Amino acid sequence: MTSLGRHILAEFGGCEASRLADLELVRASMLEAVRASGATIITHSFHHFASQDGGAGVSGAVIIAESHLAIHTWPEHRFAALDFFTCGGGVDVRKALDHLKAAFHAETEELLELERGPLRVGELESR
Amino acid sequence: MTSLGRHILAEFGGCEASRLADLELVRASMLEAVRASGATIITHSFHHFASQDGGAGVSGAVIIAESHLAIHTWPEHRFAALDFFTCGGGVDVRKALDHLKAAFHAETEELLELERGPLRVGELESR
Repeated sequence: MTSLGRHILAEFGGCEASRLADLELVRASMLEAVRASGATIITHSFHHFASQDGGAGVSGAVIIAESHLAIHTWPEHRFAALDFFTCGGGVDVRKALDHLKAAFHAETEELLELERGPLRVGELESR
Repeated sequence: MTSLGRHILAEFGGCEASRLADLELVRASMLEAVRASGATIITHSFHHFASQDGGAGVSGAVIIAESHLAIHTWPEHRFAALDFFTCGGGVDVRKALDHLKAAFHAETEELLELERGPLRVGELESR
């Protein structure tokens, strides 16, 4: 069988810490990013998350008709980890990531694209 | 900085199709799997998902205090794709995966472990 899904892992560095700690800003940015990508939102869930070293980031996921977009932020490291799982065409992951990079004022991005079903790992890209 | 999180991608093949199509069974199995791993459930969301080739799998995510566990199933391919993102110790991902493999009667497993923050890719394992 050909690949069933596409799973993009993204990491943003050098973000504005206060933005990554703001639950409502993260939630709103994630929902706008999903809309920008053309995906269809089913439901979402976001909460504050206490990291081991005392930070208070945000964790959350948007369940979309085409799969999911999840985020975990570490304001104390100015860092956000994202994963965007999509099935089928018609979802512009790049648009979603660009929206989030702008929302968090990210300076760097690392990206890894995987195929799912069966699992295949692409090249790690930085920019 | 050392790694902030651990992201395990798992794929199960040869599952029992009727189990992968059963929204309540998938939801209950995911919640039991999270509990078995020792993680703390914050909230969860599951729904039926229509795939391009007419299948009706289940998509869902459990947001845990330690990050998330997400699933997408394709009963028509007897296939399930999972990802388990954890931060900090104390979460036994293997226990969660073993619980789900048993619940879906999976015959095969592929596993990829990644470090997040910064992103590093491990070896793809099959069994």
